[in-house]
Amino acid sequence: MDRVVRDRRVLMHVGPVEIELDVLLAGVRENVGFTSKEFVHAMSSALKGLRKVMGTPHYQPFIIPGGGTSAMESVTSLLKKGEKVLVVSNGVFGDRWINIFKRYPVQVDSLKAGAGDYVKPERVEQAVKSNQYTAVTLTHVETSTGVREPIKEVVERIRDNVELVVVDGVASVAGEETRAEEWKVDVILTASQKALGCPPGAGLLAISPDALSRISEESLSGYYLHLGNWLNVMRALEEGKASYFATLPVHLILMLARAFALVEEEGLENRIKRHEMVAEAIRRGVEAMGLEIVARDPSSYSNTVTGVKLSKVPASDVLNAMADAGIELAPGVHPDLANKYIRIGHMGWITPNDAIATVATLERTLNSLGESVKVGEGVRATQEYLSSRLVGL
Amino acid sequence: MDRVVRDRRVLMHVGPVEIELDVLLAGVRENVGFTSKEFVHAMSSALKGLRKVMGTPHYQPFIIPGGGTSAMESVTSLLKKGEKVLVVSNGVFGDRWINIFKRYPVQVDSLKAGAGDYVKPERVEQAVKSNQYTAVTLTHVETSTGVREPIKEVVERIRDNVELVVVDGVASVAGEETRAEEWKVDVILTASQKALGCPPGAGLLAISPDALSRISEESLSGYYLHLGNWLNVMRALEEGKASYFATLPVHLILMLARAFALVEEEGLENRIKRHEMVAEAIRRGVEAMGLEIVARDPSSYSNTVTGVKLSKVPASDVLNAMADAGIELAPGVHPDLANKYIRIGHMGWITPNDAIATVATLERTLNSLGESVKVGEGVRATQEYLSSRLVGL
Amino acid sequence: MDRVVRDRRVLMHVGPVEIELDVLLAGVRENVGFTSKEFVHAMSSALKGLRKVMGTPHYQPFIIPGGGTSAMESVTSLLKKGEKVLVVSNGVFGDRWINIFKRYPVQVDSLKAGAGDYVKPERVEQAVKSNQYTAVTLTHVETSTGVREPIKEVVERIRDNVELVVVDGVASVAGEETRAEEWKVDVILTASQKALGCPPGAGLLAISPDALSRISEESLSGYYLHLGNWLNVMRALEEGKASYFATLPVHLILMLARAFALVEEEGLENRIKRHEMVAEAIRRGVEAMGLEIVARDPSSYSNTVTGVKLSKVPASDVLNAMADAGIELAPGVHPDLANKYIRIGHMGWITPNDAIATVATLERTLNSLGESVKVGEGVRATQEYLSSRLVGL
Amino acid sequence: MDRVVRDRRVLMHVGPVEIELDVLLAGVRENVGFTSKEFVHAMSSALKGLRKVMGTPHYQPFIIPGGGTSAMESVTSLLKKGEKVLVVSNGVFGDRWINIFKRYPVQVDSLKAGAGDYVKPERVEQAVKSNQYTAVTLTHVETSTGVREPIKEVVERIRDNVELVVVDGVASVAGEETRAEEWKVDVILTASQKALGCPPGAGLLAISPDALSRISEESLSGYYLHLGNWLNVMRALEEGKASYFATLPVHLILMLARAFALVEEEGLENRIKRHEMVAEAIRRGVEAMGLEIVARDPSSYSNTVTGVKLSKVPASDVLNAMADAGIELAPGVHPDLANKYIRIGHMGWITPNDAIATVATLERTLNSLGESVKVGEGVRATQEYLSSRLVGL
Repeated sequence: MDRVVRDRRVLMHVGPVEIELDVLLAGVRENVGFTSKEFVHAMSSALKGLRKVMGTPHYQPFIIPGGGTSAMESVTSLLKKGEKVLVVSNGVFGDRWINIFKRYPVQVDSLKAGAGDYVKPERVEQAVKSNQYTAVTLTHVETSTGVREPIKEVVERIRDNVELVVVDGVASVAGEETRAEEWKVDVILTASQKALGCPPGAGLLAISPDALSRISEESLSGYYLHLGNWLNVMRALEEGKASYFATLPVHLILMLARAFALVEEEGLENRIKRHEMVAEAIRRGVEAMGLEIVARDPSSYSNTVTGVKLSKVPASDVLNAMADAGIELAPGVHPDLANKYIRIGHMGWITPNDAIATVATLERTLNSLGESVKVGEGVRATQEYLSSRLVGL
Repeated sequence: MDRVVRDRRVLMHVGPVEIELDVLLAGVRENVGFTSKEFVHAMSSALKGLRKVMGTPHYQPFIIPGGGTSAMESVTSLLKKGEKVLVVSNGVFGDRWINIFKRYPVQVDSLKAGAGDYVKPERVEQAVKSNQYTAVTLTHVETSTGVREPIKEVVERIRDNVELVVVDGVASVAGEETRAEEWKVDVILTASQKALGCPPGAGLLAISPDALSRISEESLSGYYLHLGNWLNVMRALEEGKASYFATLPVHLILMLARAFALVEEEGLENRIKRHEMVAEAIRRGVEAMGLEIVARDPSSYSNTVTGVKLSKVPASDVLNAMADAGIELAPGVHPDLANKYIRIGHMGWITPNDAIATVATLERTLNSLGESVKVGEGVRATQEYLSSRLVGL
Repeated sequence: MDRVVRDRRVLMHVGPVEIELDVLLAGVRENVGFTSKEFVHAMSSALKGLRKVMGTPHYQPFIIPGGGTSAMESVTSLLKKGEKVLVVSNGVFGDRWINIFKRYPVQVDSLKAGAGDYVKPERVEQAVKSNQYTAVTLTHVETSTGVREPIKEVVERIRDNVELVVVDGVASVAGEETRAEEWKVDVILTASQKALGCPPGAGLLAISPDALSRISEESLSGYYLHLGNWLNVMRALEEGKASYFATLPVHLILMLARAFALVEEEGLENRIKRHEMVAEAIRRGVEAMGLEIVARDPSSYSNTVTGVKLSKVPASDVLNAMADAGIELAPGVHPDLANKYIRIGHMGWITPNDAIATVATLERTLNSLGESVKVGEGVRATQEYLSSRLVGL
Repeated sequence: MDRVVRDRRVLMHVGPVEIELDVLLAGVRENVGFTSKEFVHAMSSALKGLRKVMGTPHYQPFIIPGGGTSAMESVTSLLKKGEKVLVVSNGVFGDRWINIFKRYPVQVDSLKAGAGDYVKPERVEQAVKSNQYTAVTLTHVETSTGVREPIKEVVERIRDNVELVVVDGVASVAGEETRAEEWKVDVILTASQKALGCPPGAGLLAISPDALSRISEESLSGYYLHLGNWLNVMRALEEGKASYFATLPVHLILMLARAFALVEEEGLENRIKRHEMVAEAIRRGVEAMGLEIVARDPSSYSNTVTGVKLSKVPASDVLNAMADAGIELAPGVHPDLANKYIRIGHMGWITPNDAIATVATLERTLNSLGESVKVGEGVRATQEYLSSRLVGL
């Protein structure tokens, strides 16, 4: 099927995800330069949209080339030599902060959780209170396992004892409630290809005025990811004036502007509810067919990614067979569960139809591969749950 | 949902149907004129593709502007004043032949079946043997009810007693087995927006050499639909030479050429099997949730359209609620069942995912509207059927 | 060049012409059925747009599948058996009216002009006054030669002596001033692929209330092109209600709606001025390089098509070489000048850049083929003319 | 004009430039994840295409998120603390190397040329011979002025005295002859939005085996731009295996693969000739209308960018008026010539039609703004030059 009706396949991945055609078509522009009105207008509205989606009306928004990792690394613009950082890691992408900071002259401590678990707020509180950290990094949703950290609670406990609270919202922004300013987060960041439902190619950040004031020549960062080089460009473009430091991904910005407009049209709250409903519908199906979810604590289930453990069949076989059956899932990447779980991404423009199709196809596929699943039970549970919710979504 | 994630909706309609993105993009061409190499090449390959899909290697293919109805009317190019025609009608589109012929100086007789039924081969045989008809028209799949006529058998019975056997394959070609030449059908016709999965805008025909020889100045047809005006144009274009009678739908032809290429890539037999499987999966679900199918005789179930009777709720309410839930179905149009049934179109680039999503959404929708359906039973039946078939399609 | 940078080629043809990308992208919709809100909305706004572009606020607009020829033939819906029609023909497409009417039981007289000429208003007046014609057909711009008939003057002279004045505006609507209602024209018609700048696939008409009242069961037309079958469909759709007689070219309608919106945005008057300026710029260049224009009388030069005579080189060689050089022109089709002239189409989304590029490329091409042209003189004249006009268009 | 016929405008900018529709459409894919076969295949073929375009069959190709500047900064992956670098700068983008290296613990010397000039090979030779530099950076075409450095000659003179020769080919690769391996350049880099004619969003490099062996944990670079993190990903993907370090710009890669295929189809040599011809045609016109080119030495004229000095009118006024007239040019950015020159970008999918249209529009625009240009002389010179070259390109 993959060749013949390739556009009827469904991408239930962790980014890029299924992209709305309107968003893609917004980028089909043959003659838009970085000084053109069309681009400047799109960039301005994307920056304004970002303020809304991140819940940061008074923060400085940035949209820079790259992705989640480069956005993370750009946070070194806020640090100086010798400062101390605490990384709170729930998996592969929490650990990525450690790998980044190791390349810079800062001291890094970390708190880690086992695969499927998350570092509890009290552990973070304790660590922050017994040390002098300039910055703490948190991962809202850990993409490698689908586990959600209770950001609001953690920040409440540590806010008074640390200068910078940095949140990786790569797998949460636009899919989970994110009120960064209200929660007193200093830096919130994401990537274009996640719950915003655009192609990959940009990292997006919102930075509090206090954090912003830390940017200087002494900032640790290199050149391209030094936010000081981008600051005036962002300000000018948001005000509708052409500006340049290095070339922005013009066509992707046109798409982002369209995506933010669609988020506005749907309503951010509705969008998050839609994510929550589709996520729950998938989890119900997965559990009813007899599989275990990677995230241990149901309160940490995320709206955007679900890890699913397999008992017999290697994950790679399942992924291949699923792709052949028209649904592309993501491989598990947590080293402790290598080839023993798969990930279902459910973010962006996902619908209840995707939930039922994914559960049905997974059920059939696992059954045909010899995993012991109860054929029909998963779909039924998903269907009953959806039936209990708003039909009309 | 219809505004925000509008491209994630699924169109289970009777034409236009869900269109593969590749096909649509083939028509996004800014500078292709009707004498350009690109168009001539596409038209040539579409005409060649048509020969294969209709099973008519030695017939003359035509692709003309318009659609199914204009293709039907162009058959008057094969008739002369005063000739006698028998229309075999199983519903609205069978009756359309009568309405067309009434505008011309021919004698028309008809055989009709009740809603959901079809005229049995022996009735046709009897009528043809007891009269002198120049032409008999048959409808392979009656779009208004989803009923399939056993063309091969009918033609076997009447072939020796009638000069022209004309088959309306609008709702069958590329979704049902169609071997027009082998079955000794003289004229087979379809439209671009049906199982070929393209936008509407063209009627497609294949005509046997004998039938073709009837075209003359005395033909009944007007000017635009007079196949004599198009014949040399089709011949030239198939040979790769630019030609003109009236402007062809250039961009649609580019899409048709792509669609025929995709049909070739999938394999016509595989394509028909896919239609057959998705159709059966939908019918299983529909019946298991407690609904009745319009087509009475299971041997007349079609691969492309399923009519579904409703007992309480008006069809229009169901269609609106379904559209809100992300699946667009077609209204029932047979006057005998006005507002009492809906039609599910399942043709073109449909997949098992569409089947499960359609059945699930229908179940939830009908339940919420108060139709007595067994929630969960429909999906389960569809799932069990799909599970019993090739997983990997 | 044609394969590698194929989208940088420019199509200076007579339809399809160069199409604005926005218009094409409006049709890239995977899931729009003929009963969907999106289609109904687009059709409604296209019909309303048509009223404006044709200058017919109180006429009934029609958009039907097909093209210019089918729209012409649909005018038989307004005629009855035995009525008498006068065809005023300035070339191939004027003659087409004769060919159409010959297929129907009407009496046809014609007035003809030589290639490059047009039938003078007084000749028409004389004919109409000395005969009892039900209808007179006129061709606003004769596509085969680029000659414009002074419609307003002709109608003033004949209005009181004929019931129906029918104008073929295929090569004029949206590129020439067209005030059909003010001029008391009864029927004005065009096709989607001309100055409206859309793909081919639809004929568009506006019909006066008096003319509309002639539609009946006794109308001469067949079935598909019988406007009586489409009338209620057009009315319902314009009011925003789904309706059906035969499937409309849904995706093309989405594009037409976008094109009408762009016409509105530009302003119809501005659009016509743009056509007029580009046309004049091309003619200046063509004449300055030493070539003769097919249209004899400068007052009959059209905004949309320019025929250009060649003295030595066969037209087909010029067209091929021009296409290789990145500009596609149209062949001459008037039989009296076979292979002795080419046509430059300049309609739709054409710009002064197209004018200068066309003249420059034509100059170089003709020179390289041995036609005696003054290289540099054509471009200079075009440039001087453009320089004398508004720079900023 | 900019709103109404916006896609008929021509973008003669320095990147993004005019993009071929085929390239854009290759990225319109709704469901392609970073592990999907479709992406892996595209990335593999893009990497292979990069080897060809850069003339580096045995080097390691990299395509990483970002653009020219990030690609430049990633060269710090090849350097260690305390090493000494010589930057040869002909303008803004030469100076950018200095700004980058300043953020890292290396010693930086520089050789600079005045605006419009370039550092002569002998100066570089002298500097390299009288110092111990680990690396020398050169800019093939300086985008800020359009000046080309004779790379081959410079490298011949310095090759034996420096370990790493790094060439910024941002404004040259795919538009100028680039035989990096033959010329013994170690690192050649470019960006997607330049002469490759794609949207911005990726930096592309090819690195010699010797240079590659310098990558280690001690490399100066940070994390995201550390080529060591990308190396195995590039190798795996080129071999057709999915791999991940950070998310690649999937949709842009699909477009790059298409662009490389089109380059292959055109032939790299033909492509460079096309650039050279269009560039010369523009310069002839610019000079004939009485303007001065920024690049002083004709042997340093580039195929891709032409700076044009203005005598009276501010550059910003010219750019605005040109944009209104349908041709978008780039602002001058060299501080020594602030607002006194404009840049014409001529790279990617440019054609002779673009040259003539640009020169004609510039002539008219400057004239209308009061710059003393000879209207008609520019176009004539461009036309004469084009006429003397192959018509059929």
